[in-house]
Amino acid sequence: MTESAADALICLAHLGEPGDQVLGAYVRKHGPVATVEAIKSGKSGLRDAAGFYARLGLADPQAAREKCQRIGAQLITRGATTWPTQLDDLGDAAPFALWVQGAAGLRLVALRSLAVVGARASTNYGESVCRDWCATFADAGWTVVSGGAYGIDAAAHRGALEASGVTVCVLASGVDVAYPRAHEGLIARIADSGVVVSESPPGQGARRHRFLSRNRIIAALTRATVVIEASVRSGTTSTANAAMALNRHVLAVPGPVTSPMSAGCHNLIREQGAILASCPEDVLEVLGPLSVTALSRGTDSRLWSIPHLPTDDLSAREKRILDAFPSRGEASLNQLVVDAGLGPMDVAAALGILTAGGFVQASGSKWTHAGRA
Amino acid sequence: MTESAADALICLAHLGEPGDQVLGAYVRKHGPVATVEAIKSGKSGLRDAAGFYARLGLADPQAAREKCQRIGAQLITRGATTWPTQLDDLGDAAPFALWVQGAAGLRLVALRSLAVVGARASTNYGESVCRDWCATFADAGWTVVSGGAYGIDAAAHRGALEASGVTVCVLASGVDVAYPRAHEGLIARIADSGVVVSESPPGQGARRHRFLSRNRIIAALTRATVVIEASVRSGTTSTANAAMALNRHVLAVPGPVTSPMSAGCHNLIREQGAILASCPEDVLEVLGPLSVTALSRGTDSRLWSIPHLPTDDLSAREKRILDAFPSRGEASLNQLVVDAGLGPMDVAAALGILTAGGFVQASGSKWTHAGRA
Repeated sequence: MTESAADALICLAHLGEPGDQVLGAYVRKHGPVATVEAIKSGKSGLRDAAGFYARLGLADPQAAREKCQRIGAQLITRGATTWPTQLDDLGDAAPFALWVQGAAGLRLVALRSLAVVGARASTNYGESVCRDWCATFADAGWTVVSGGAYGIDAAAHRGALEASGVTVCVLASGVDVAYPRAHEGLIARIADSGVVVSESPPGQGARRHRFLSRNRIIAALTRATVVIEASVRSGTTSTANAAMALNRHVLAVPGPVTSPMSAGCHNLIREQGAILASCPEDVLEVLGPLSVTALSRGTDSRLWSIPHLPTDDLSAREKRILDAFPSRGEASLNQLVVDAGLGPMDVAAALGILTAGGFVQASGSKWTHAGRA
Repeated sequence: MTESAADALICLAHLGEPGDQVLGAYVRKHGPVATVEAIKSGKSGLRDAAGFYARLGLADPQAAREKCQRIGAQLITRGATTWPTQLDDLGDAAPFALWVQGAAGLRLVALRSLAVVGARASTNYGESVCRDWCATFADAGWTVVSGGAYGIDAAAHRGALEASGVTVCVLASGVDVAYPRAHEGLIARIADSGVVVSESPPGQGARRHRFLSRNRIIAALTRATVVIEASVRSGTTSTANAAMALNRHVLAVPGPVTSPMSAGCHNLIREQGAILASCPEDVLEVLGPLSVTALSRGTDSRLWSIPHLPTDDLSAREKRILDAFPSRGEASLNQLVVDAGLGPMDVAAALGILTAGGFVQASGSKWTHAGRA
């Protein structure tokens, strides 16, 4: 990707509201650079062009990069090697860029992730189940993704942290704006070992409609969404609906029929085909093994953009080639042959497996390490 | 049905163990009279012939009828007009005869019935949900069928009784042997307004294997089975499995995933396709309306042998013809035309509807009122 394309995507991330499909379709048709130029020259013809134009002053890519450095965040643009490609399943509603803060690499940890979401007004039952289960998921090597909210979200992050697992918090506000404020400490702890991510620029507060658009990111990033307590019509069910629309697995945890906080879960199971999860193993069974061997299983379309990613399961040869990648940028086959000290056939075969597993990305005759910028 | 066939069925009900499919298949092939003769003459060739022969002394139909009179019970044999024909769905495992005690007519009340079953070691949660729901089912005109056991069964009967509803208790022991003994009063109250029924002759105690065979009767009698609390491997799940095998609806009530008593319900939903029921309306929706209008819906094979039975929904003409039936025995078309004072075409059309609705039974050119002996 050219630098100007990345700059244009950063600019667009400031102009459009999250999930704006009209702008997304325009970008798909004309590309990000031409889209920004059309908005600047007032020739885009987009319905919201005036609003975009008004925001141009806030959408300077250079200033955005500098701000990122100041707050210790990273800016990842669509198409970058660190981009979580499963977000592309969102089509025209996919984000243009993500602001990321934290110790872990988003793309890598998201490849082995599940979403755990639920009611803010949760019960002790829901919170205790959530915390226990998320610790189990973390123990099994899975990344727990949630939204940092009160109730079930917080219990999900805490359960993963208690098991020293990686957890990802997708904020509706900018990554430097803790929302809710009471979770400032929790969000900081998440960043210490995991990732805090947002498609809204730093400094932006959480707005009501952004919670719904944020939920689609949670659904798209992960291989499955587990709902633990939800009232019948709620933001949580919107995450579940988004996950279903993306052909992700949706599981719901039952509870007493006398608890309104379980009514949304029962509804998801009864009316929408969510899988009933009565123990963490029910969830792990649906997620499938954390193993590249699963790749040979073939054609489960639900997983096509979310390959497994366990370096533990790679062969010595594959690990050796992965290690041979340069710390930045692309590598050619020849370069890898030289650096790994293996034959071209061996390297090519291993690259096939590494590509399928999401460890590396091919572009033309070059390969890039997915975990390196 | 001839008297000798009824006598033979009564005899067979004393000889075979409930649900004996080998004996059932023999009876299907040779008829009840020839089967009894073959057993008496030692020529049946049945594997258990010696056991059947040994029981012949206890299997005197006349003595059985007299005992029934003494204890105030009724003896209904397969094929009688008061026989609940949905039991024939059990095929070779269908009972030969039923002992019935109580104020209500089994065939009539079973036509609008559902089974509510569950764990003996139930929790307060399960019992209170069960009692509430069964009162609602009774209020809606449905007969609650259960097994009279501790826990959920007892709560089901009590809930129906509290709403002054009809409830049916299917015992594994004879109808004059209250099991468990502590439920003697409850079982007597069930008989006061509903029905206590058994396929085992009076005086017989409950034996372990008879609970499982009893469960098939509960499943077959009813239009749907609702499971409220069950451990994973239990008698309750055997009732659910029997209901599924008979293409009856099976619903299960979720509960806390931390409760072992809900684990069987969650398993039924997750693994066996039981419908999640979170409120009594979920169940009523599956049962369908208590209305003959439902008959015109056509071809739901699950319901073919369990027609709806609401005299309230009959037309004035149909009610008039139903009233014209003699108090006992069959009626010809001519007889009904005379007694109802309606034209033969009208009577014939109404008889079609009444037959479809389970109000009357056709045999040859005669009709019998399903609610009269």
